[in-house]
Amino acid sequence: MGHNPKSLEKSRLQQPVAGNGLLDRRAFLSGGAAMAAGFTAYALARPARAEPLKDDPWSLGPGNLTGPYEQRSRFEDKVVRTLSNPKGEPRGQNARTPLHLMQGTITPAGLHFVVSQAGSPDIDPNQHRLVIHGLVKRPLVFTLDTLARYPMVSRISFLECGGNSAPFFSPQPIQATVQALHGMVSCSEWTGVVLSTLLEETGVDPKAKWLIAEGADAPNLTRSVPLSKALDDAMVALYQNGERLMPANGYPMRLFLPGWEGNMNIKWLRRIKLTDGPGMTFPESKTYAQILPSGKAYQFYFIQEVKSFITQPSPGLAMQGRGLYEISGIAYSGEGRIARVMVSADGGNTWAQAALQEPVLPKALTRFRLPWRWDGGPATLQSRASDEKGNMQPTRAEFVAARGELKATVSPMAFPNQHFNGITSWGIDASGEVKHVYA
Amino acid sequence: MGHNPKSLEKSRLQQPVAGNGLLDRRAFLSGGAAMAAGFTAYALARPARAEPLKDDPWSLGPGNLTGPYEQRSRFEDKVVRTLSNPKGEPRGQNARTPLHLMQGTITPAGLHFVVSQAGSPDIDPNQHRLVIHGLVKRPLVFTLDTLARYPMVSRISFLECGGNSAPFFSPQPIQATVQALHGMVSCSEWTGVVLSTLLEETGVDPKAKWLIAEGADAPNLTRSVPLSKALDDAMVALYQNGERLMPANGYPMRLFLPGWEGNMNIKWLRRIKLTDGPGMTFPESKTYAQILPSGKAYQFYFIQEVKSFITQPSPGLAMQGRGLYEISGIAYSGEGRIARVMVSADGGNTWAQAALQEPVLPKALTRFRLPWRWDGGPATLQSRASDEKGNMQPTRAEFVAARGELKATVSPMAFPNQHFNGITSWGIDASGEVKHVYA
Repeated sequence: MGHNPKSLEKSRLQQPVAGNGLLDRRAFLSGGAAMAAGFTAYALARPARAEPLKDDPWSLGPGNLTGPYEQRSRFEDKVVRTLSNPKGEPRGQNARTPLHLMQGTITPAGLHFVVSQAGSPDIDPNQHRLVIHGLVKRPLVFTLDTLARYPMVSRISFLECGGNSAPFFSPQPIQATVQALHGMVSCSEWTGVVLSTLLEETGVDPKAKWLIAEGADAPNLTRSVPLSKALDDAMVALYQNGERLMPANGYPMRLFLPGWEGNMNIKWLRRIKLTDGPGMTFPESKTYAQILPSGKAYQFYFIQEVKSFITQPSPGLAMQGRGLYEISGIAYSGEGRIARVMVSADGGNTWAQAALQEPVLPKALTRFRLPWRWDGGPATLQSRASDEKGNMQPTRAEFVAARGELKATVSPMAFPNQHFNGITSWGIDASGEVKHVYA
Repeated sequence: MGHNPKSLEKSRLQQPVAGNGLLDRRAFLSGGAAMAAGFTAYALARPARAEPLKDDPWSLGPGNLTGPYEQRSRFEDKVVRTLSNPKGEPRGQNARTPLHLMQGTITPAGLHFVVSQAGSPDIDPNQHRLVIHGLVKRPLVFTLDTLARYPMVSRISFLECGGNSAPFFSPQPIQATVQALHGMVSCSEWTGVVLSTLLEETGVDPKAKWLIAEGADAPNLTRSVPLSKALDDAMVALYQNGERLMPANGYPMRLFLPGWEGNMNIKWLRRIKLTDGPGMTFPESKTYAQILPSGKAYQFYFIQEVKSFITQPSPGLAMQGRGLYEISGIAYSGEGRIARVMVSADGGNTWAQAALQEPVLPKALTRFRLPWRWDGGPATLQSRASDEKGNMQPTRAEFVAARGELKATVSPMAFPNQHFNGITSWGIDASGEVKHVYA
């Protein structure tokens, strides 16, 4: 007791550093030494009774069998992807990642987001072929067995649909969970052969400037990619978090273009044709080209720009009374590493710097965290990320001024608009409910 | 053509750097510029025909439905854990990770190894409680909801059973896959609350030197942990690769002790009691204490020492003719980061340094890779890892001289021996078959 320096230091760190109760990101970093202070910061847990523990029913007999591929607890049945077309009617199918119910940065393959035009082809990996042809010196055919002998690389990298966060184009904030608003971004460890290795095998005609990648799904989704990206960090991905790709993520192989919009990362990859210009294919000319307020079309924009949002607290996760919380969220940039995430609890008037979970990897989800003492009053939570290239998230107002806004509020599923990366705001009222607001 | 400097540099790098065809780890690192050389290194792929691609059957109609939690392709049905007790007879159950069929470093939760004494208790997370008591100032009870408000951390870390690789105590090399020999090591992104944060809440009596952690499974598996580890990097883990823990990995919470033997990472954690000495519990006194050749017992050894093995090629994955291959494997150390992995193709006479996949994280699986030109003759592949603390893997002969060897070859499942971390050797003959050898 008394003036213990550790205790004083912790007390100092636990003073607010920005408006409405935001605390220093280091407030609860504790090594063993800090413990001697016996400082009770959270006081959330109940005192334990003196008597011995009573066994719960599941402690009284043998448990369930361990199987060849483990399934989740039945109590996790609600932690699933939401589906835009659960019956598989003849149109596209989207599946969104439940980011508000997850932690860390890796997305289990079973919960990875999906956008597909016609479901997942049931590809026999031993029959599947990848052809590289066009403006090359030696057109070649690659089997899965052949690709297994090439040098591989692994990288933890996010993937985001260009249409993720489309509800933010609505003139009124749509009330929905993080899953519905931002759930088309996920992060995996991808392993495969870098495309430049395969292009060394085929040789490249100096006239080649682009490639056209084509999938083996029924619509043969086809996108044009500048050759410079192919020679930079593009990969033919064969594994996702250590096992083969999931069917809806391109089994047995997909193009992976770190940091670039999802639809260009052609799934079920069967063909790469080198060309002297873009193919102006249907998806890139119609589906994924957006008309700007200026009247011009926003085509071939590729990069998923710097972005962040808070996942806990968030809509659907009500506050449980005043006191200490951890604000937690994810940040990412298609241009490199996240440099900094600032958090506000007062709608952007004041900001505090969040802690970033190491390792901060380029073009990967980065978890940020900040302690917060909620006083039970109204609060507006926001996060604003910057990347190592100096890019910073715009406010929503800045974003829609440049890229447009819809005239009326429609279903989140119906939004055609692309590449929203503005700031997300959660409004908390005295009841503890968390709402989506524009602030 | 002619004397292109890039081409010359690549040719130089593609000269062997160690016996029996090992190439420089940088031989196939290629940026865009190297491509201009048009150097055909692998020559593994067939020439593509000039005519258009013929559609495969799966490209001719709609694919399969995308579901709420995605399942793997039916063609991956053989990539599963092998089970020691598939019918759940009243004894322990082990499940081994199929490392020879995987890539990268992350283990999908469904394929994570398991050792359990009595199956997985079917725990209701809303009823489960964690009690911390004993030599503390304030005994406390934590619910899952309470823990969700504390600061969390994430770390990618391996977990290994102390009995992994027990077949290497056999006097004769047992012919089996990497899965059977080394499959009780896996790696996940674990997220939870560091234990020191919870101990700050309870306060710690200065007399406390150990803790006893207890699981809610029927046998109440109980292990003693020095308090110094609890105050260092111990965690109460709640999430595994972004989602809640799998049932057989401790749902809804487990103790996680980075780098320490698996059985101490108590699953289904329900109780932590601070004490002034170890509990000398049954598991640590009998099951996990090994008699050394000297007659002393090897108890409370904790750390999984520096180790590595080659996963591709390996037994069961036959060579496909002479030419270029990538040798690939995993390395890890319970004491920190992997510093270096050396690879030999001639049974340890000469060595070449393997490339380590970034990021190299402390106490995590690290993928190493090295290009190799197999001439079709006999070869003995080995890997030898060192960690940042200066520890290096021993040869198998050095290891068993110190820790003992069994008198006769018995079933791999029956081995009682612990903590093998010696060098693994794969013998390749002219037929291309890969065998487990002692070399």
